[in-house]
Amino acid sequence: MANPDYKTRAGQPFSRDAFDSLLARKCFLWQSFEPYGAVKGFYDYGPPLEELESQVVSLWRDHFVRTEKMMPLKCSMITPYSVFKASGHVDKFADYMCKDPKTGEILRADHLIKEVLEARLLSDREARGEVVGQVEDDAKKKKNKNKVKNAPIKLDESVKKEYEHLLATLDDCTGDDMGALIKKHNIVNPSSGNPVADPVPYNLMFQTQIGATGKEPAFLRPETAQGQFLSFQKLLEYSRGQLPMASASVGSSFRNELSPRSGLLRVREFLMAEIEHFVDPASGKKHRKFSRVRDIKLPLLDRKTQSEGGSTPKTMSIGAAVDSKLVDNETLGYFLVRIMQFMARIGIDAKKLRFRQHMANEMAHYATDCWDCELLCSYGWVECVGCADRSAFDLTMHEKATGVSLKVREVLEKPATVQEWTVNLDKKKSGPKLRKDQSKVETALDALSQEERQRLAGEMDKNGNITIPVQGMDGPVTLDKDILTIAHETITKTTREYTPNVIEPSFGIGRILYCLLEHIYWIRPGEDTARSVLSFLPTIAPVKTLVVPLQGDSKFDPFIGQLEDLLDERSISYTVDKSGVSIGKRYSRADELGVPFGITVDYETVEGKGVTLRERDSMTQVRASIEEIAKAIKEMSEGITTWDDVVKEFGLYAGGEAGKDE
Amino acid sequence: MANPDYKTRAGQPFSRDAFDSLLARKCFLWQSFEPYGAVKGFYDYGPPLEELESQVVSLWRDHFVRTEKMMPLKCSMITPYSVFKASGHVDKFADYMCKDPKTGEILRADHLIKEVLEARLLSDREARGEVVGQVEDDAKKKKNKNKVKNAPIKLDESVKKEYEHLLATLDDCTGDDMGALIKKHNIVNPSSGNPVADPVPYNLMFQTQIGATGKEPAFLRPETAQGQFLSFQKLLEYSRGQLPMASASVGSSFRNELSPRSGLLRVREFLMAEIEHFVDPASGKKHRKFSRVRDIKLPLLDRKTQSEGGSTPKTMSIGAAVDSKLVDNETLGYFLVRIMQFMARIGIDAKKLRFRQHMANEMAHYATDCWDCELLCSYGWVECVGCADRSAFDLTMHEKATGVSLKVREVLEKPATVQEWTVNLDKKKSGPKLRKDQSKVETALDALSQEERQRLAGEMDKNGNITIPVQGMDGPVTLDKDILTIAHETITKTTREYTPNVIEPSFGIGRILYCLLEHIYWIRPGEDTARSVLSFLPTIAPVKTLVVPLQGDSKFDPFIGQLEDLLDERSISYTVDKSGVSIGKRYSRADELGVPFGITVDYETVEGKGVTLRERDSMTQVRASIEEIAKAIKEMSEGITTWDDVVKEFGLYAGGEAGKDE
Repeated sequence: MANPDYKTRAGQPFSRDAFDSLLARKCFLWQSFEPYGAVKGFYDYGPPLEELESQVVSLWRDHFVRTEKMMPLKCSMITPYSVFKASGHVDKFADYMCKDPKTGEILRADHLIKEVLEARLLSDREARGEVVGQVEDDAKKKKNKNKVKNAPIKLDESVKKEYEHLLATLDDCTGDDMGALIKKHNIVNPSSGNPVADPVPYNLMFQTQIGATGKEPAFLRPETAQGQFLSFQKLLEYSRGQLPMASASVGSSFRNELSPRSGLLRVREFLMAEIEHFVDPASGKKHRKFSRVRDIKLPLLDRKTQSEGGSTPKTMSIGAAVDSKLVDNETLGYFLVRIMQFMARIGIDAKKLRFRQHMANEMAHYATDCWDCELLCSYGWVECVGCADRSAFDLTMHEKATGVSLKVREVLEKPATVQEWTVNLDKKKSGPKLRKDQSKVETALDALSQEERQRLAGEMDKNGNITIPVQGMDGPVTLDKDILTIAHETITKTTREYTPNVIEPSFGIGRILYCLLEHIYWIRPGEDTARSVLSFLPTIAPVKTLVVPLQGDSKFDPFIGQLEDLLDERSISYTVDKSGVSIGKRYSRADELGVPFGITVDYETVEGKGVTLRERDSMTQVRASIEEIAKAIKEMSEGITTWDDVVKEFGLYAGGEAGKDE
Repeated sequence: MANPDYKTRAGQPFSRDAFDSLLARKCFLWQSFEPYGAVKGFYDYGPPLEELESQVVSLWRDHFVRTEKMMPLKCSMITPYSVFKASGHVDKFADYMCKDPKTGEILRADHLIKEVLEARLLSDREARGEVVGQVEDDAKKKKNKNKVKNAPIKLDESVKKEYEHLLATLDDCTGDDMGALIKKHNIVNPSSGNPVADPVPYNLMFQTQIGATGKEPAFLRPETAQGQFLSFQKLLEYSRGQLPMASASVGSSFRNELSPRSGLLRVREFLMAEIEHFVDPASGKKHRKFSRVRDIKLPLLDRKTQSEGGSTPKTMSIGAAVDSKLVDNETLGYFLVRIMQFMARIGIDAKKLRFRQHMANEMAHYATDCWDCELLCSYGWVECVGCADRSAFDLTMHEKATGVSLKVREVLEKPATVQEWTVNLDKKKSGPKLRKDQSKVETALDALSQEERQRLAGEMDKNGNITIPVQGMDGPVTLDKDILTIAHETITKTTREYTPNVIEPSFGIGRILYCLLEHIYWIRPGEDTARSVLSFLPTIAPVKTLVVPLQGDSKFDPFIGQLEDLLDERSISYTVDKSGVSIGKRYSRADELGVPFGITVDYETVEGKGVTLRERDSMTQVRASIEEIAKAIKEMSEGITTWDDVVKEFGLYAGGEAGKDE
């Protein structure tokens, strides 16, 4: 249901129906495979949205990859089972579902609870006479859908409070928690009235198979991160062993959602842009460029405020936030600022952006700190970027599972003396026994932690041999004490080995695009009818300019042709509208598509007096030669100049027929 | 096995091993999931290749989407079963595989035949003493792999000819053909010596499931085309009903290859860029811009030449080719030229490019004409772009399967009188009976062809009712003559309906990138050792310039910093190499990565005399201020100026320390 408090950028009430209808009419998107009956959770991007995505991704690459000297990377989407077994996704990447035992219907547990409690709260508001306008419509729709026939029911104040608290904390619930809630609050399947079975986990990855043998199960990746972790040694090579270093991937990920909903916000196939910034934990996670951003202020909604039931962010400088340890470290803080700057560059409304810190129980157990960049839209606050300090978790997991070192080896400036457990294989003796497996065994031995070595030393003392699993071999290997020595020694180290920590800013591009569309949408009051406008910044607008002849007159054709050639030459995207409707209507059509500029060829053009250029938001115009106009559009599209600069250069043009119809 | 006749761009013998080792060393690519044991057919793109792909895709979008006013589109990759059932992929998108019944090994039938016959031909060449150099090495490797222990065997001249003919025509073979060949030529599994079972088809699509019910089987798309066809009505709406129109998609596709091989040329996950150009067949498939390209010459290897055993293309103008009907129509011809121009823009060697016409039996049965743009590399001629006239096949198939009209309705300039079978549903009578299915039935009736209507008129006469299947309903529907009239009438038409034909240029981006890398690779003879160079055009080079201080001296640092800021400001990608090795070695490292330019900060810089700029291929230098150098690099990277222009402007710089070490 659309948030009744959500307003357009012009402060007008927001109608989801009107907005959705605009997006559909202008071919921004549609459900995939419509002729076959649309399948939930899959969308095709039509021309304006595809072009928008492309421009936003280009800008993302410029803002992060080029400016921050990251290493771009493209990893495979189809991923073998063993990778996601080690990462924890096979066991833990699940939603809980409840079955309606009578109808066979499958419901997502958290959605079921949310829907029923919200309906009860709505019914309570109706009973109190609080429901008006848009909410009322939505309430009616929902009631019809859920076959709620009964009259509004008023709730006790304490019950109402409890429901509100439950809805706010639902994300933190385990499957068992939700099972208990369903029983306690008599939650039944709204469409059948049947009680539902206990919640059971359902893995969200799409499964497939590689090859014909059936022996290579695989998944479509649910995030791009794992491929980046597995490329760690290559990245280290490419960066000549220097940390900090960062990789960046823009690519599709897939989640087999049980019940996709909320349009582009929860889909089964989506584009992500993920950064893995690898840093030496001993460095204190300082950032070289932190001093440049130190004084920039961010709206931070911290953990403490949330646990006290608050939802108002504190605006403070990132320097103060890191100094007070509210944000764990400089690197994390630096990325929060860069994320906010990126959002500003694409046109996100700063007043509809906040950073929310994860609650302790909401955060993955290995994470040190995590902040979501949330954008406000008619669905509420939506997580669009996650920015987490994942510590050394992922590299450690994959190293354990494969025995392949995912560590950095660093030459120490001064040698250091330490006490350590060492393992030494007598290669002369082990060679004839291990043969081709020799190097695999060495790799496995090298990967043993100090704790494991100590334990194995005990085993060796006791049995005279030890047995260890070795990656790439069928069974474990037993090594006798005559070929393997484990000792506790004082050694002088000239190098230091460590597993880097990872700071991961992870962007959901589809969600950002959707919120952006809502943020730039507004209604222009009109004489006859109100008209929708999408105010894309010129730098990311899918189409930069409209080209129109004043009316149907063949005199204008050569000038239109000339303009087309000129715009083509300068790589400026445009659309020509020669249709018979009034010029005002043609501009309105372009406003709906978010085209920032419009060039009109009129009778003065024929007299050699140039063309007019109209700006979408202010509807003001200037007049200049076609070369000057093309140059102005190019420079505004590249963010070099603004409309104000153009007006200053050419002066406002008040006359002319172009504006009359609007 | 590398083609022994393949040469580098400098005319040198090409060593696959040396080339592969360069790509690996410079982190262009690696097999995915290496720590878990690489999985065949999956590659990760490292920083230089990812950046190259991004630049080539940008250029493709500029060259086709923007310049040709195409509609960019992004469709879902996961696609329901029913779509690929209708498109024919479920039944026909298969390779043939043979099982070794004793070992359980699965072999791709065509690969098996190719490998065995090629090994026999090689053995013959060895027996004749013709095998030298690289080929010998490859032969040895292959012999070891296939455990061929016996001495070289000479073949009869007629057998040799037969093998060569078979290898040239293997692509045209059906499964049965291949089964017969395997028997006739005693082809066995080379690694076991066992006879193999008859070839059986194996579907190449990755299968998965949507949702939790198990009722929604789906595939990963093996091409992007079907999503574009299913979006036809939306595209038509966006283009305001005007044809010709074209959509374009850049996106990943997936094929579950039985035995991936040949590096990037045959992989399981790959990027495609596909155009669907929709055209009115009654227009003769003319193209508005054909006159602009008419005189451009292409190397065309036609069907007739191939069937006579020839492989030398004829170079002729596209105008002559279309006039003589060698190329079926202007639109197809226009695209062939645009494909060739695109290849030139990214740096493909024109001498290693040809257009090969499909043989009649090689072409899909529905295609009118099909030409592949093939690029020569060390693996031979590789299909990199297919350009087919697919007629109305796809839209017709999907319309049949769904009952949804995928036709264009055009208002006729003059009304036309025709004799036609009409169907009329009496809605007053049918409404109460059909209820909510009314519109589905109407859609199904509208979609009936004239032939079907005639047949149904007969059925109605005979039985007093007809029965038709209706999309979206459980069973067929029976309609009585009192609610449905089928008549043969003379009607005056004011509109015309037709299914557009589709011309489809389809690009395999990974293959193009691989061939490009081979085309720009050469060896610079050196005093001590020969050094590899990748000669990327400045417009697509992943990194535009190297920045080096002459040697380790802190005096240079402020200038390096100044340069970095300036290059960042102008969005020029660069890499700084301050390592201790000689300047010549640092340039060589950048040459291997294909960096076109190098800026050196030296002692003259400190004296205010600017920096030197070195060009990779010629190793010549100029000297100018850092602002001038940055501007020059920017303009060369945008294709506005060339190195020759820069030399003309600043003059060659002969002095300085930068060149000495090379």
